[in-house]
Amino acid sequence: MATYIALVHYPVLDKKRRVVATSITNLDIHDLARAAFTYGISRYYVVTPIPGQQWFAQRVIQHWLEGFGAEYNPTRKTAMQIVTVVPDLEAVVDDIESQSAGKDTNAKLYFVGTTARVLPQQISYSALRQKMNDPESPPADYCIVFGTGWGLHPSLLLDMDYILKPIKGCGEYNHLSVRSAAGIILDRLFAPQND
Amino acid sequence: MATYIALVHYPVLDKKRRVVATSITNLDIHDLARAAFTYGISRYYVVTPIPGQQWFAQRVIQHWLEGFGAEYNPTRKTAMQIVTVVPDLEAVVDDIESQSAGKDTNAKLYFVGTTARVLPQQISYSALRQKMNDPESPPADYCIVFGTGWGLHPSLLLDMDYILKPIKGCGEYNHLSVRSAAGIILDRLFAPQND
Repeated sequence: MATYIALVHYPVLDKKRRVVATSITNLDIHDLARAAFTYGISRYYVVTPIPGQQWFAQRVIQHWLEGFGAEYNPTRKTAMQIVTVVPDLEAVVDDIESQSAGKDTNAKLYFVGTTARVLPQQISYSALRQKMNDPESPPADYCIVFGTGWGLHPSLLLDMDYILKPIKGCGEYNHLSVRSAAGIILDRLFAPQND
Repeated sequence: MATYIALVHYPVLDKKRRVVATSITNLDIHDLARAAFTYGISRYYVVTPIPGQQWFAQRVIQHWLEGFGAEYNPTRKTAMQIVTVVPDLEAVVDDIESQSAGKDTNAKLYFVGTTARVLPQQISYSALRQKMNDPESPPADYCIVFGTGWGLHPSLLLDMDYILKPIKGCGEYNHLSVRSAAGIILDRLFAPQND
């Protein structure tokens, strides 16, 4: 099983539930790359269809891979190596398929959406974890999809194979940053069980 | 039981293990406030002894409490209400004591350190969770302490009542951002157990 994450900047919602494209946030690239690398994620896709935003993300990544940053902080370089900028989730599918080309793998790719909203058809963390680790299941890859702004657009969520339950804290407040939420979700799904 | 968190900017280590004071990072204020509020933390202490840095942190907080930010994003205001800027951990003790003055509480305050290093005397998440929820224990408050830069200075860690085990991912890489680490640690300690 290979696992991937994607951080979507379009189509997402703004606070009035309109569809928007959000800007790349520098620390989203760093924090999610470091968390993804920590939990054994093969690749972190930064998803934006806007060329200027793709350029900006590439420039941040290159700084840490080859620029001054690579020398200044090698552990950051390690994490940045798994970051890829793509225009949409179709490009994620293409990239994963091209990586497995020639390999003897029939793994099906499942997309797993995340949201702060409670919806009727959602999977729990333990159920998804069990599914991913079930030795009886046919080979499968998983891509966990996070939204920026006020969350993934419903049209994208509808296309997901699974949608995770929202992170429940100790009250009704559900406004975690995507940086915190992604870290928590990866920890719940992929951390070794004995702490 | 009341719970608190503190984000320490001095004394912390830099990457050559020298003692330094780090700068306030805007998103550390936001992300940890939102995560703390999500998990029922009573107060989030931003710890820096440097007056210019205290001023900067106050200015960010005031923007979201009373400035344009309060109107633009009320959920951010909610989270920012629990943030307090203090010079050191002694001031944290004083603030907590002043809050409980006049109340009929004898709760002892325990400081819980966090680190990415493996040390001989560390407590697991499940053990600390059990301790915090043990109905037989005398009343206690807990303050979880996070370090910026390359982590809390050993002199501070030595003064902690407990030190949590580092977050273990799927390999040896242990370079989470403090924003991710704090979210994951709060989730492990305070999330409702059924997901």
